[in-house]
Amino acid sequence: MPDSVSTTAGLASWSEAPALIKDELGRVRAVIAEQMVTPFGPVNLLLQDVSAGSGKMLRPALVLLCGHCCGNLNKRHITLSAMAELIHTASLLHDDVLDQATTRRNTATVNILHGNEAAVLLGDYLLSRVFALGMEFDDPRIGRIFSATAMALCQGELLQNTQRQNWQLDESVYMDIIRGKTAELFGACCSLGALAAGADETVESSLRQFGIQLGLAFQITDDLLDIAGREDKVGKTLGTDLDKRKPTLPVIYALHSATGAQRTELLRVLSGANERPALVRLLQDCQGLSYARSKAYSLCQEAVHCLDGLPDTPARSALIRLTQGIVSRSS
Amino acid sequence: MPDSVSTTAGLASWSEAPALIKDELGRVRAVIAEQMVTPFGPVNLLLQDVSAGSGKMLRPALVLLCGHCCGNLNKRHITLSAMAELIHTASLLHDDVLDQATTRRNTATVNILHGNEAAVLLGDYLLSRVFALGMEFDDPRIGRIFSATAMALCQGELLQNTQRQNWQLDESVYMDIIRGKTAELFGACCSLGALAAGADETVESSLRQFGIQLGLAFQITDDLLDIAGREDKVGKTLGTDLDKRKPTLPVIYALHSATGAQRTELLRVLSGANERPALVRLLQDCQGLSYARSKAYSLCQEAVHCLDGLPDTPARSALIRLTQGIVSRSS
Repeated sequence: MPDSVSTTAGLASWSEAPALIKDELGRVRAVIAEQMVTPFGPVNLLLQDVSAGSGKMLRPALVLLCGHCCGNLNKRHITLSAMAELIHTASLLHDDVLDQATTRRNTATVNILHGNEAAVLLGDYLLSRVFALGMEFDDPRIGRIFSATAMALCQGELLQNTQRQNWQLDESVYMDIIRGKTAELFGACCSLGALAAGADETVESSLRQFGIQLGLAFQITDDLLDIAGREDKVGKTLGTDLDKRKPTLPVIYALHSATGAQRTELLRVLSGANERPALVRLLQDCQGLSYARSKAYSLCQEAVHCLDGLPDTPARSALIRLTQGIVSRSS
Repeated sequence: MPDSVSTTAGLASWSEAPALIKDELGRVRAVIAEQMVTPFGPVNLLLQDVSAGSGKMLRPALVLLCGHCCGNLNKRHITLSAMAELIHTASLLHDDVLDQATTRRNTATVNILHGNEAAVLLGDYLLSRVFALGMEFDDPRIGRIFSATAMALCQGELLQNTQRQNWQLDESVYMDIIRGKTAELFGACCSLGALAAGADETVESSLRQFGIQLGLAFQITDDLLDIAGREDKVGKTLGTDLDKRKPTLPVIYALHSATGAQRTELLRVLSGANERPALVRLLQDCQGLSYARSKAYSLCQEAVHCLDGLPDTPARSALIRLTQGIVSRSS
């Protein structure tokens, strides 16, 4: 594997994966758009600038492809996909306020366009709207999965928040953080897709495990890109973890494996500003980047392994290609 | 009625109201405390500084007293009360970030103690936890009421956010704002109290109307205090509406009723900083304060009228005293 993060590969196989679910993704976008309407005109103008449904739609794709793996897609899959994307959008709105990010999906963030107040409130609104949608299902498991996932997401973010500038952070706590903030929602998407297709508990549980491993790999790669990616390729403000002094896997590993002199130099660079290029060189010297990349790679292998029991369908193949694309993505 | 907001009366009859529900309020506080625990020690330390359950517990009191009016209190009333207080606490956490407030309930706000990030995330966490609690009920109406109320709350806050510095704001839009941001939750509390006691639809609907009128009166009084209250009595940062250029009822009425010269002077003072004493004098001249106070008073009368059909019980009397206390409160 190369020692710097690819900035040209894109989400390699991602463009193929949605072929199978292209129509459904269109319907998911329509359901998302329906949620962006309130009885108040000025509020609707704000909601127009929330770019829900304009991203990669990775979480809806997981709901839909996992549904496909277990049977036929139905209307519930569309609503569940929209809910998953909206909960993700809500967390992005708040993340961008917290990170003081200026760019997301290559456009100005809502906090920049309309201020932090609007961004926080719009996030709260979308979160509430997701729960309202959840209450339209007869099946109480839907609401339970979403509320548990939202709680896990907040716990992960809060745990990360308490560990800023803790350069002693243990890899296991980092894994707790990314499981909460990212992987639980991936797992929930896969679980919900299976559930809405009437899958049995064993299949649902395997797909949830698939989603969790995939989510962990995805977040490790995201954290790698924050250090070593290119903004014009990734499409969002980078270096925010460093600015906020959040220890991520490349840094955690490097600090554990570094010699005394390297460690001193790493800590000096980490406490400075705008030191991304210097940090990348140091992390290369201490194998921080390659360690994180191989960790993501092996998590993807574990994810694919979770699909072993499923019949060999185009949807299963699409999930495998999607997983392979995660580690080589640049956006 | 006096033309300045009382700063000594307190929430006049409030201290008597809880006698009937003292034990239950203690149990509500215990349920709230149970929610402040996650699997992560550092997160629990943050949650310890969220002062949920330390305030007036007005929303739990509404759930409990309305429940009492309709029959016997049960375990569901305790959980519903805790949920109502937690949703309120979540919105306070976010409000304090948005208002850059430093003091709440006479202590430092979470955003001051732990930063905006932690305050936003803790609010998200509490909101998610409320929905998780809602999913433990067999009755899907519970989750529906809470998600609809949370959406209304966000819509009201968002609408207010879009109307900052709009000194032409119509009173009816102001009423939409405060209905969403405050009164719907009051109405939901009353409705939930009735519902959990097995009340019929007519009674539930009357109590919901009672809560909504009460909530409108409460918010008008809150907005009055923000202009004309004393921080040491109210126990939180005041003048934040003015700092954020939010038009509230005294200002809206005064601008509509003012002479040309008064209007010019009002707009000058509203665009300045630290002009609270000057504004109070001008609002007195234009009857802005007395208009808002009499509006709150008549809403309280309407609220009490909604209780007409209920049997004359100690709980009903407590609700009436509580309503009377709302307009003369200073905290």
